[in-house]
Amino acid sequence: MSSPNVPQGFQLAVASAGFKKPGRKDLAFALSDRPAVAAGVFTRNVFKAAPVQLGSEIMQERATVRATVFNAGNANACTGAEGLANCRLSQEYLAAVNGIEPGEILPASTGVIGQQFDMTLWQKAIPELMDTLGKASVEDFARAIMTTDAFPKFCGEELLLSGGTVTIAAVAKGAGMICPNMATMLSLVLCDAAVDAADWRAMFSRVVDRTFNRATVDGDTSTNDTLYGLANGASGVKVKGDDLKILEHALTGILEDLAYKLVQDGEGASKVMHIHVRGAANDADAETVARTVGHSPLVKTAMYGKDANWGRIIAAVGRSGVACNASDVRLSLCGVEVFVHEQPVDEDLDALLKEPLEGRDIAIDITMGSGPGEYRLLASDLGHEYVSINADYRT
Amino acid sequence: MSSPNVPQGFQLAVASAGFKKPGRKDLAFALSDRPAVAAGVFTRNVFKAAPVQLGSEIMQERATVRATVFNAGNANACTGAEGLANCRLSQEYLAAVNGIEPGEILPASTGVIGQQFDMTLWQKAIPELMDTLGKASVEDFARAIMTTDAFPKFCGEELLLSGGTVTIAAVAKGAGMICPNMATMLSLVLCDAAVDAADWRAMFSRVVDRTFNRATVDGDTSTNDTLYGLANGASGVKVKGDDLKILEHALTGILEDLAYKLVQDGEGASKVMHIHVRGAANDADAETVARTVGHSPLVKTAMYGKDANWGRIIAAVGRSGVACNASDVRLSLCGVEVFVHEQPVDEDLDALLKEPLEGRDIAIDITMGSGPGEYRLLASDLGHEYVSINADYRT
Repeated sequence: MSSPNVPQGFQLAVASAGFKKPGRKDLAFALSDRPAVAAGVFTRNVFKAAPVQLGSEIMQERATVRATVFNAGNANACTGAEGLANCRLSQEYLAAVNGIEPGEILPASTGVIGQQFDMTLWQKAIPELMDTLGKASVEDFARAIMTTDAFPKFCGEELLLSGGTVTIAAVAKGAGMICPNMATMLSLVLCDAAVDAADWRAMFSRVVDRTFNRATVDGDTSTNDTLYGLANGASGVKVKGDDLKILEHALTGILEDLAYKLVQDGEGASKVMHIHVRGAANDADAETVARTVGHSPLVKTAMYGKDANWGRIIAAVGRSGVACNASDVRLSLCGVEVFVHEQPVDEDLDALLKEPLEGRDIAIDITMGSGPGEYRLLASDLGHEYVSINADYRT
Repeated sequence: MSSPNVPQGFQLAVASAGFKKPGRKDLAFALSDRPAVAAGVFTRNVFKAAPVQLGSEIMQERATVRATVFNAGNANACTGAEGLANCRLSQEYLAAVNGIEPGEILPASTGVIGQQFDMTLWQKAIPELMDTLGKASVEDFARAIMTTDAFPKFCGEELLLSGGTVTIAAVAKGAGMICPNMATMLSLVLCDAAVDAADWRAMFSRVVDRTFNRATVDGDTSTNDTLYGLANGASGVKVKGDDLKILEHALTGILEDLAYKLVQDGEGASKVMHIHVRGAANDADAETVARTVGHSPLVKTAMYGKDANWGRIIAAVGRSGVACNASDVRLSLCGVEVFVHEQPVDEDLDALLKEPLEGRDIAIDITMGSGPGEYRLLASDLGHEYVSINADYRT
C-alpha cells in the first residue's frame, strides 16, 4: 500500500530522538500552515498521562491548533508534576522553532509507563525533526509512532464533495492495551476540509464510538489513548449540510479500517473475531455479552488453536451477568449454526468448521432472544506471541 | 504429601470409564453408610450443566444424601434434555448396585462442553468402580477428577472438638475456567461430624465466599462449578455452639489451601499474585479493582516475565471504573512501595524488585484512599503454557 497524500496545508516530520532503541524513528510532528479546527478523544482511565491532561486542557480552551507531536518509547504516564512540566517543555521547544504558541501544539505519547523523559533527548532531536519537515510521508509518521506494532497503520482518501475534493489521511498505532474508550493507543486524522469546529467534534465523537470503541485486543484501556482530528480548510472546500454526512461516512470507513488493523495486529494475533450479538433486551446488554466473549482467554485461545470449541463461547455468554433464557440463546460460528435449544446442532461440527477456522476472520453470531439490543465488536485471539511480547516488553 | 484419612462411615471408589484418554481414571464415587447432611454451592453461569441442574434440585428437595459421583472428561453441559436424561441414568445405575435411591446421589461433571455421554461407558465402568469401593484413597479420588490439572489437590485434618475428634477430607480440581462464583470446577468435602443441616449449609456458604470465590485464573466461570460438602455424623461427635466456630475455622483453612492450589496450578501458571486492595469506598469497589488487576492480561504477562512493570497495575486500577482520586492511590509490589503521589518512588525499582519477582508468591498491595473498603484476591499469571493447553484442549 502506497502512502496516502498529505492533505493540503500540512507538513509532516519525523526523527530518532532515542526514546526507543537507537536508530529507530520515535518522534513525529504535523504542522498546519494555518489554524486547524481540532477534535480530541481521550482515554477514560483515571490515571491520565501528562500529554492526555495537557491535550484535554487545550481542547477545552481553544477550537483551533497549529500542530501535534507524537512520540513512542515513553508514555510520560504516572510521572506526576515532573511529567507535566516535561510535556510543556516539549511544546515550548517546538513552538520556538516554528514560531507558534506552545498551547497550539497537541501532544501524545506511547511507551513505557512511569519513566521521566530525558529532556536533552528532545532538545537534540528537534533539529533533525525540523530538517524533515514537509519531506516525511504519512507512512513515515505511522512508522515513527509504532511500539510493539508489527506493521504501520495508515490510510487515506480523496473525497469529492459538492464544493470540490478534500483529502483525508489517518494513522494509528495499537497492538497491546487495546480496549473500549478507546481502542487505540494513538491515532491522528488530518483533513484539509473547512468544517465548523462544533460539527467536526460532534462527528468525531460519533465515529469513534462506532469504530475504535468496538475493537478489543486484551481489554486493557491505557493511560494514554488519544485520537486527534485536525481540519485546516486548506482545500478551500467548505463542508456543510449533506456534505457533512458524506464526510462522516468517509471518516467512519477510515477509522473502521484502522480499527480492523489494530485488532489484526493485536500483539501476536492471528485472528479477527467479528462478534455480533442480537436479540438482547437492549444495546448495553448486547455490548456486555460481546465484550465478555471477546475478552475470554478461553475463547481467544480456542480461536488461536483453530478449535471449534464453541462451548467456551456459550459459557462466556452465560457468565456475562446478562439475564437471558438459556433456551432462547442461539450461536453460529463462521456462519454455521452450532447451538440452539440448549444443545448442539446434530451435525459433525468439527468437520464442518475445520476449514472456516483456518481463515483470519471468524464470525461469531449470538442471538440472545427477541429483544431489540444489538452490538458488534472486533476482537483478537490470544496466542504465544502475546505472552512473549508482553512478558518481555521492557527487557 | 500422604493421602489424608477417609472420614468414618465413608467409602471411596474410582474407575476408568473411558471419558478421558484410555487407561486414565475418570470416575470417582463416595458412599456414606448412613444419610449425610449435604451442602452444595453451584456456578452462577446461566448455562448450568445437567449435573448442576440435578444437584441443585436435590439440594432443594432434601437435607441428606447417601453418595456423590464425579466424572472428568465430559462436562455434560450444553447437552439439553438428552444430557439431563443421561445424568439421571447414571444416578440410577449407581443407586441400583448400592441399594439406595437415585435422588440420594449428588452428581458432578467436568470436561468438554457440548458432547453427549456414551452411556455404555457408564454401564461398563460400574463393576470396576464397585470393586474399588472402600479401597480408593482421598488422593485417588482427587486424581480421578483431574482434567488439565498438573497435580492432584487434596487435604485433610483431624480436628479435636469438645465431644471428640472429627475427620475432614477434601479434594478439588481446577486449572482453567477459574473465577468468581466459584473458583473451582469441582470440589468435595467429606466430614464425619454430626452437624445440623442448616448450620452446615450456612457455614459452607460463608466459607466459599471467603476462599474459592477469592481465587481467579482466567476470569472464566464455568458451566459446571460445583462444591459439595457431606457430613454423616459417623464419628458420633455432635458439633454445636463454639465447636461450630472451630469447625468453620478448620474448613476455611482447608478450602483456602485448595484455593491456593487451584491458582498455583492455573493452567501454566508460575506465580500466585496476592492482591490486596484497601482504602476503597466500600468492599464492592475494592473487589472490582482487585478483579480488574487480577484479570488484566498485561499484568499477568508482566508477572510471568518477572518484569517490575508496575505501570500496568496502575493502568488497570485506573480503568476499573471505580471512582478515586489519582493522587490518593498508592501501590506496593512485593512489599516495596513503587507509586505514590501520582509518580514513581525515587528508587532503582528494577534493582529492588529483581529478586522478589523471582519468587512464586507476588504481593500486590493497592491503597485507593482512606475508605473502609477492602478485598483480597488470589490470581495466577499468564504464560505460554496457558496458551498451549487451551489452544489444543480438545485435540
